[in-house]
Amino acid sequence: MPKRIDHVAIIVRNIEQALVFYRDTLGIQPGEIKEVPSEQVRIAFLPMGGPGGSEIELIEPTSPDTSVAKALEKRGEGLHHICLEVENIDEALQEMRDKGAPVLDEQPRIAAEGRAIFLHPRGTNGVLLELIEKPE
Amino acid sequence: MPKRIDHVAIIVRNIEQALVFYRDTLGIQPGEIKEVPSEQVRIAFLPMGGPGGSEIELIEPTSPDTSVAKALEKRGEGLHHICLEVENIDEALQEMRDKGAPVLDEQPRIAAEGRAIFLHPRGTNGVLLELIEKPE
Repeated sequence: MPKRIDHVAIIVRNIEQALVFYRDTLGIQPGEIKEVPSEQVRIAFLPMGGPGGSEIELIEPTSPDTSVAKALEKRGEGLHHICLEVENIDEALQEMRDKGAPVLDEQPRIAAEGRAIFLHPRGTNGVLLELIEKPE
Repeated sequence: MPKRIDHVAIIVRNIEQALVFYRDTLGIQPGEIKEVPSEQVRIAFLPMGGPGGSEIELIEPTSPDTSVAKALEKRGEGLHHICLEVENIDEALQEMRDKGAPVLDEQPRIAAEGRAIFLHPRGTNGVLLELIEKPE
């Protein structure tokens, strides 16, 4: 059902500092750094593979109260979640519910890049998994 | 410098059990399950997005002595590493060394899908990062 890996997210303490490795050492040109006030984070995508290519997302918490900030405090910087693109997020939500997957959202949330739901790691072999429907 | 995300790897206790979610619930048709005796693991790729699409790799340790098995014991199932494809692994190795990145390999290792090097999480904001050159 998922069409592709949309992005893989890494939590970092500070995006500019992380770009010392990802941009300057590894050579990936990042997109614009964006504030996402609704999620209390700053984000930057590292595009690869041309249009349709899967990206790395850097996430920096801007408040200590979010799950992202708590994950950073508990486990340090590192991999946080995988996001898979689906055709229709409402159908995906219904199908995940029908199949007993542990969906964390009652309704799709408005994420930075589309409408999305998250699945709890207890039902996905330890991986926080985001499913997203992107606008055309 | 990296061309694309080749795969994102998830460590699992048992690949067949993990496919209950990834194949049966999520609907991704896996490739063949392969033994990799040199690494003491079994692996299966979950292809998405057509030719050139980034994949999820499921990794199951087959011996308790490897770093993969130790990661599983210490942290449980979950995200393990990201693999980025590069054009030329020898040049990438030299460039990473020149730039002071913590390369874990003296020479490229023969991985399941090509010649590869790993970078230690201490130089990559907490992410075990694989760079791979795939055969034409």
